[in-house]
This record gives sequence, structure tokens and C-alpha cells, in this order.
Amino acid sequence: MASLEQYLNSTEKGKSLFEGEIRKLKTPVCKVFLKAGKITPVDFKASGLAVKSKDALKVKEKFPHLIVKNGDKILIAAAKKTKEKIKNKRVAVLFSGGPAAGGHNVVAGIFDILGADNTLFGIKAGPKGLIKGDLFEIKPEDIKRIKNTGGFDYLGSDRTKIKTPEQFEAVKKTCRDNKLDALVVVGGDDSNTNAAFLAEYLAEHIKEDGSGVQVLGVPKTIDGDLQIGKNLPISFGFDTATKVFAEMVGNILQDTPSSRKYWHFIKLMGRAASHVALEVALQTKPAVALISEEIAEKNMSLNQIIENIARVVIERARNGKNYGVVVVPEGIIEFIPEMTKMLKELNKAVAEHENELENKDLAEKRDILSSALAADNMTLFSSLPEYIQEMMLFDRDAHGNLQVSQIPTERLLIDMVKKHIKKEAPEVKFATLNHFFGYEGRCGVPSLFDAAYTYNLGLAAGALALAGKTGYMASFTGLNQGGKILAIPLAALLNVEVRHGKDEMVIEKALVELDSPAFKYFIKNRERWAKEDLFNSPGPRQLWGPSANQMPITVALNQGYKGLEFKI
Amino acid sequence: MASLEQYLNSTEKGKSLFEGEIRKLKTPVCKVFLKAGKITPVDFKASGLAVKSKDALKVKEKFPHLIVKNGDKILIAAAKKTKEKIKNKRVAVLFSGGPAAGGHNVVAGIFDILGADNTLFGIKAGPKGLIKGDLFEIKPEDIKRIKNTGGFDYLGSDRTKIKTPEQFEAVKKTCRDNKLDALVVVGGDDSNTNAAFLAEYLAEHIKEDGSGVQVLGVPKTIDGDLQIGKNLPISFGFDTATKVFAEMVGNILQDTPSSRKYWHFIKLMGRAASHVALEVALQTKPAVALISEEIAEKNMSLNQIIENIARVVIERARNGKNYGVVVVPEGIIEFIPEMTKMLKELNKAVAEHENELENKDLAEKRDILSSALAADNMTLFSSLPEYIQEMMLFDRDAHGNLQVSQIPTERLLIDMVKKHIKKEAPEVKFATLNHFFGYEGRCGVPSLFDAAYTYNLGLAAGALALAGKTGYMASFTGLNQGGKILAIPLAALLNVEVRHGKDEMVIEKALVELDSPAFKYFIKNRERWAKEDLFNSPGPRQLWGPSANQMPITVALNQGYKGLEFKI
Repeated sequence: MASLEQYLNSTEKGKSLFEGEIRKLKTPVCKVFLKAGKITPVDFKASGLAVKSKDALKVKEKFPHLIVKNGDKILIAAAKKTKEKIKNKRVAVLFSGGPAAGGHNVVAGIFDILGADNTLFGIKAGPKGLIKGDLFEIKPEDIKRIKNTGGFDYLGSDRTKIKTPEQFEAVKKTCRDNKLDALVVVGGDDSNTNAAFLAEYLAEHIKEDGSGVQVLGVPKTIDGDLQIGKNLPISFGFDTATKVFAEMVGNILQDTPSSRKYWHFIKLMGRAASHVALEVALQTKPAVALISEEIAEKNMSLNQIIENIARVVIERARNGKNYGVVVVPEGIIEFIPEMTKMLKELNKAVAEHENELENKDLAEKRDILSSALAADNMTLFSSLPEYIQEMMLFDRDAHGNLQVSQIPTERLLIDMVKKHIKKEAPEVKFATLNHFFGYEGRCGVPSLFDAAYTYNLGLAAGALALAGKTGYMASFTGLNQGGKILAIPLAALLNVEVRHGKDEMVIEKALVELDSPAFKYFIKNRERWAKEDLFNSPGPRQLWGPSANQMPITVALNQGYKGLEFKI
Repeated sequence: MASLEQYLNSTEKGKSLFEGEIRKLKTPVCKVFLKAGKITPVDFKASGLAVKSKDALKVKEKFPHLIVKNGDKILIAAAKKTKEKIKNKRVAVLFSGGPAAGGHNVVAGIFDILGADNTLFGIKAGPKGLIKGDLFEIKPEDIKRIKNTGGFDYLGSDRTKIKTPEQFEAVKKTCRDNKLDALVVVGGDDSNTNAAFLAEYLAEHIKEDGSGVQVLGVPKTIDGDLQIGKNLPISFGFDTATKVFAEMVGNILQDTPSSRKYWHFIKLMGRAASHVALEVALQTKPAVALISEEIAEKNMSLNQIIENIARVVIERARNGKNYGVVVVPEGIIEFIPEMTKMLKELNKAVAEHENELENKDLAEKRDILSSALAADNMTLFSSLPEYIQEMMLFDRDAHGNLQVSQIPTERLLIDMVKKHIKKEAPEVKFATLNHFFGYEGRCGVPSLFDAAYTYNLGLAAGALALAGKTGYMASFTGLNQGGKILAIPLAALLNVEVRHGKDEMVIEKALVELDSPAFKYFIKNRERWAKEDLFNSPGPRQLWGPSANQMPITVALNQGYKGLEFKI
């Protein structure tokens, strides 16, 4: 017995058999980085590809250095022509925003390509650490420990946005104090927007010789909303998160015809865009999957959504199937046009009638609001379950706005579908359960796809640092045939968007495009999936064995690949 | 593109790459079943082991046939002495109760050992199907399709308890109509209790020759509460469910020091016993894991539980760790002695004051109850969050009893810990999220352990049928060294328990024993796990590769094995 207890104690702190073995897994390296089997820096040259911003002129004004330097041209990595060795570069890396699987491999990739002649620093706890100057030198033994592991815990992360002049100044100080040559920002659309501004700010006169500090971005987010067509297939972490969620959804799907009892409504994290919901739907084929972008595009009402779900429930019941799964994207509420319209008016009305509304019960509040809301808005509001009405009147942030993300959409849908079925087909049994998957998918061990994707993104970011480039985001494409490393000019990605009432330059969130191959495949097949049990239970992601090398289905479809296997 | 779409269509309905490959996995076979590499029936002989019932005399009265025939002796499988071939046996198998991973392999095991000379029938939708006589013949192509897959969907299941004389009569008719020789019941403690009664009822005079129909049990349940010391290490499905849950808990643990923000309270399915919570705690080492049996044994109050959690939260905060995970077993409420006592009195009081309580608000209701409840009960009741008080007064079943399983324990704990911290250490940040994992763990693809365990349990059940045995449950022990197949006499497992106010003979639910090696290991180490981040993220269960052959940690500890690897 003693020996088993000792063994168990020895596996504490990330040293279980599984965790030990994944650290030993070899991650494939894009051949452009390999010279005689060794990881080697590369050159970046014109690729013939470019980025299109609809606000190019405005951007040019704000980004004189970057736009002059980089323009809108995408670069491609190529084997190094010269033998010159770059030495004594000091590079720092930080994580920004919510964690995503594979972050540690980005660090490992940068570290490995910098090699022993250069130094990599880790910035603790995200942009906040950059402002504070909280850095430490990364050592080879750290890389051995974090390789292929999930989480952002090695560095930590936070959501600080570097916006004020004082913050920019503090970053400059950190760069100078630590004699940094380059910064790598690992983050989503907002963080890469921030990286663009930093790159511009730090473009010159930072170091003693008058030169600047390079800033490079790495595309991260489980939401998948940082992708740029053929030039950036996907953000890292998306594959792992969707595989975690798809296993759970698949397990529940397998449960439905086993216990023949429940409809499960499953909400999936993913912010505004429905990439996660679409990918999980393609992997598992549930009876219903809602896609926010389609709802917005087709101007669907809440009632139409409810009717559509109810129709599937009733049809399946008539075929003896009193069970099924409905996949719901996190951000759906804000994509129902009538809902957005109603909430806008409601926010105004609540602010205007604040005093009157106080200490009234719900029926009285509705009376007060009925004079303040347009008839259609009032009808919609009154059609919602009462606890949602209460919530919409109470749960407000500091600006008096409803916290839409707090609305339990999956319960809202369940209750409204239940009501509809009770009226339309009272004989239909409709027992339900609801789930929300999100945090489970951010820090799992990276899938082999994410492990390889992130390691190569790290190599790319490190190579850009060594090549003296600034204002680029690393990208990795051609994943079905060896891979190509691209560098996308960050400033050229910016567009003007109205946020909080003012114009801001941002990298737009990529939404699901209704004419994309992945979405078109989904709508072509979903009616069959609604009727029959054609689901898949794709199982836990495998790090070994015959099914380990799969990429996301949406990526394979949208990139026009012929199969699901990645080949690097 | 066309070709990828065609490939995707071809993988619908359980034919993804992963699902295809797992069907091809070879499941190891206990060598007692192998003769020249072929699966072969076995003899069952005395093992020297026996079962102890504290109510042996009462059981003997109710089970004259079974007790005379089987007594309390456990049998062991041994290579067959004679060459005689058993032919034309007609065996039927059913699933009973909630699904658990590996059920399909039980069917495959029975099918394979019966061979082409005998016939296996599947009973549809559980005991209800047995009553209705809803059977079909199982074919080799079915077995190929279901091998190693999760779920109970091949047969379906239900929770019908066969209790009334009419139901027993109907089962007899099904046996006669279909000329059955044996029934295999795959189920938990209740279903195996039912199997014992069926075995007794069908012991003789069923078939034309005056003989009976054999009834055999197979121990299933993700809850792990059907286990009998060294004679039955665990019920099947436990390993898969706990591995699914441990991955989720591990992913969330990995998230905590990454985002440094949240305490996650995670409730785990598992009914009354805390086997699931204990196993997941040993696999992941969270800051806190509650074990219901310890709470009951130590007569802990709700307040003590809250204080213990708050103490860990506060200590960790003082060490810069404003995050952590608390694992909560599903059945905890009913194990808090003061809570059970209060609820008992509350149930009575609510029934007695039904009319007075109607249409009152909560404060008024508390006034009414304060005269009906003992002071300590009233204090406890009033200390609960108001939504829980409301729930305890409203959510009642047909008998007027509170539906304890409906109480959102994880939220109750969060709210009470929050209140406590606000008072004791208001400076401590305590942001929380809650989760419930259950349905995700019942129908996932079986772990290699469960795949092998269930296939061999199926071989054992089939072998018992061929050997003419009745009233036994199949068991598989010695999992660290090739394995031994046992047959445990079902009637001898019964004890008298008071259920719904009357004496009933049942197989007792196995609870976590506080003197078991697994629990002792847990308490020896948990204080360290509370203080530091020593957690594991054990990852998704692997079907291939170096970590695929792990058994549950609690099983390995409690069976006294030297390692975690199973060797069959």
C-alpha cells in the first residue's frame, strides 16, 4: 500500500501519468523553420496577399509609422538567405484576456526559436504586469514543465486595456527598464487591437539608439472570432474548447435515446459569434442548433425561434422521440433584432421612470411601462417569462444598462417552448434539463491540433522578433499540406466601429458568414438531423491513436481542405 | 470540397473517425475464459468466500429456493472440466435504471460466450419491456456496431420496479412465450435486489419440464454505490463517469490560477454516496472536497461546513490565491444530521399548518412555523438563504415531502459562505461560479477500464447462464493481476431496511467508509491541497497511448493494489 500512496503523492501538482506523458509529445514543426532538423530563424518576404480595411484612410492617419512601414501587405516566412546569427535580443511575452488551450506552447515556440543567444521574459498577469514591469526570465526547465499543458497559469493573464497616456508611458518605461527589443501579445481581437496601438506608440525613440520596440500579436480565443479567411484559419484554443464541448454534447446526445426522457438545452460559451456553436453542431449533429448570425440576418423574432424549436420537438415526439438536444450560442439574445430594439427602449424607459417603478410589483411596473414602450416592444416584453421580466428591470450595470450576458437564455428558451407546446400540442411530453459549458473548455490540455498550431505560432512570433518586424500578427495557414507561416499587418486590420457611443479603431470580430461553406453545409443537413437520430458522440480528444490529428470541421470546410486531418 | 462533405455525411450516426476506431479496439479477456485463444464457457466452483447478511434468517424465509440452492457462498470461475457443449439456450438481457458506460460491452460479452449454438435476446426499454414481452434477437452485426460504444441506446432502459403480483405474472408469461432459459439484469442495487426476487419467483415450474428460469445480475451504476469490498471492486460506469468529471474539474482547476478570479463550486452526480466526489477529489486534488459520509459520521452542522470552506477561502486569499475549487457530492443535504432533523419536523409542520401558510409571505410563514418548530430547527431554517426557505416550503412531492434532490446545494453553499466571509473577512474577494456535472458522465464512450471490465462481466453473466446458475451477480476482481471471475449469491446480499415506513429486503447502498484506505489517504493529504496549488488536470480519458490503462484511484487503494494500472 505504501508504494501506491507514495506514487500518488509524487504525481501531485501536474505530474499525473497523463500530464507527464503529454509533456513528452513531439509537436510537428512547419518545415520552413527546419534546417538540418534544427529549429532556425526565417526571413519574411512579400506574399502577394494583402489585407483590406474599409477605413484605410482613417487608419493611415492614426498609424503613420506602421502604415508606412508595413502597409497592407501580408508577409510570408521563407528560409533564411544569410547565415548571420541574431544575438542578445530581449523579447517579452504576455497573455491577455481569457485563457485558451495552447498558450504555453506559444511561449515554448518563441523560446525555442530565440535559442540560447537571446532572452525571453515572461510578463506576469497580462497587460497589468506590462504596465507594472512585472517580468521574469524564462528558463529551459520552465519550458520543459509547461510544454503541451493547458492553462495560462505559467504567466497568468488579465483584461486590462492599455488606453490612457499614463499607461502607454508606463509600458515605455517597462521596455526601457528591461531593455526590451520586442513584445509579444497573445490575445483576442481587442488585445491585438491594443498590440497595434502599442506597436505604433513604440515605433521609434524608445531605445537609446533611437529605435523602437517591436510589438507582435498572436491570435488567441476559444470563441473563434479572430479569423481572417484564408489568411488566418482560426484563433488558437478554439479547437480544444470545441472538442471539450463536443464531447460533453455528444455524451448527452448518446444519453437521450438511452434514457428516452429529456430534452437538453445546452448553452455554449463563445461571446457574440456562433463559431463555437456551429463547430459543435457539425461535430455532434443535434436536433437543433441555433446560429445567432442567421437569426439576425433573417430578422427572426423570438417567437419564430420558439416555434421552430417547438416544431422539431413535436415532430420528434410524433415519431416516438421524446428527447433531443438544442445547442444555444452564448450571445444569441443580442442577435434577435426585435429584442435589441425592445431592450434599447426599455433601458430608456427604466431610466426615465426610475422613481415610479420603485417598490412596485411586476404587474404595476408593466402598467407603468406600457405607456412608455411602443406596442410591439411591450408585447414582446410581456411575452417573456416573469423572472426574465424581473431580471430585465433589475439586473443593471453601473450605466443603467441591462447585463444581457446574465440572462439565462437556455432557461428562457425552455420556458417559452414549454408554453408553446402546452398550447399547440398538450399531449407532447417535454421534460428538460439545461447546461452551460464554458470554463471547462478554456484550460484543458491542448488538442494535438492546438498544441501544434500554437507551437508554430510561437515560432512565427519569435521569428518576427528576430527579423526586426513590428506591428504584425503571426498566422499559420495551409494546414492540410505542411503549412505556411504568414505575418499579417495589424494596423491594416483595423476598422472604425462605434463602441460606447464613440468611433473606435478595432479589429472587427469575425462572425459566422452565412455564405461560408461550413454554414452552408450545416443548413443543408440540419433538417435531417432534426428528424432522425444521426448524431455523433465524437468522444474525448485523443493525444495518441488514429483519431488524434483532427482539425475543426468548420476550419476544414471554410479553408477548402479535402479532409479533417492536419498535416504539418 | 465535395469530397469532404461526402466524408462528413458518411460519418453521421456514430461513424466519426473516433467512433469507428473504438469499435475495433480489442478488449482484454480474463484468461479463465480462454482456451487456445478462443472464448470458452467455464465451470463455477466454491471459492471459500462468503457473503454476510445481518438478516440471514429473515432472508432465508423469503428466499427458500435461492438460499437452499446457493446459500451465502461466493463461486469462482474455473476452466471447464468436461467437453460437453451447451446448445439451444435462450438468454435475454435488459438494462435497468440510469445509463452507465460499458452496458453495450456487457451485451457483447454475453453474446460472445453464448456463441452460435445459443440465442441472445435484447429486452427493449428495461423492466417495462420484460413485462410487456418486448424482445428481439441480437445479431452479430449488432454486436459489431455497439462494441465499446457508450450509452444504453441499443436496448434502452427504464426505472420500472417489478413489485406487484401482476407484474411478476407478466414476467413469467414473457419467459414462457419466448421459451427463455435465463434473464440477465444489468442494473444497480435496486435492480439487483429486483433480480434476486425474480430469481426466487422464477426458480421452478416455469418451463414445461418443471424447471425454472435463471436470473443473473450485473453490477452497474456510475454512483459506485454497488461494491462489496474485495469481492466486487466497483460497479461498471463509475470509472468512465469519474474520468469525465475529473477532466472537467481538472480543466477548471487549471483555469483558476490562469484567470485568478473565481471560486468554482462543482456539484457531482452520484446519489447518496460520495464515491464519485472522493474519486474525483483524489484525481484532481481541489482545495475543498466535501464527503457526505464524514459529515454524517462527525455530526457536522451546516454552519461547521460553511466555516470550514470559508476558512480555506480566507487562508488562500491571504496567500494571494483568490481562487479555488470546491467539490460537492449530490446527496450532501441528507447527510447533515441537523438538516435531516429539521426537515422532518418541517415536513410535519407544513402539513399541519397547510391552510394557515397559504397566501402568506415568507416572514409571516416563518412566524407561523416558529411556534411549530423546535428552537434549534427554527434557527437553522432561518439561517438558510430565503430562496431556499421558499423552496423548502413549496417544492413538495405528491406525499407532501420536500424534494431534497432539487435543492441547489452548490448555490446554497456559495451564498452561505459569501455571507460568512462578508462578516469575518470583508476584505477577501470571493467571486464564484457553480457547475453541476452528471448527465455528461453516463453515456460517454467507456474508458478502457470500463470497456474491459464490462466485457468480462458480460462473459461471466453468459457463463453463469450456460452453467445453469441462478440468483448470482457477476463480479470481476484481482484486476491488477489477470483477474478472477466471481459469482455472488444475490439473496445473501439482502438486508432488511426501512423504506417509506416499511421493512424491505434490499441490497444496501455501499457508502464511503471512513476507515477505507481511499478515504484515509484523502484526509491525510487534503489540508496540503487546501493551502497550495497541488492540483492535477488528469486530462481527457485516453483510449490509446501510455495513460490509457488506469483504473479508479479509490479502487486501487481500497483493493490494496500497488499501482493504478489494470492488468487483465
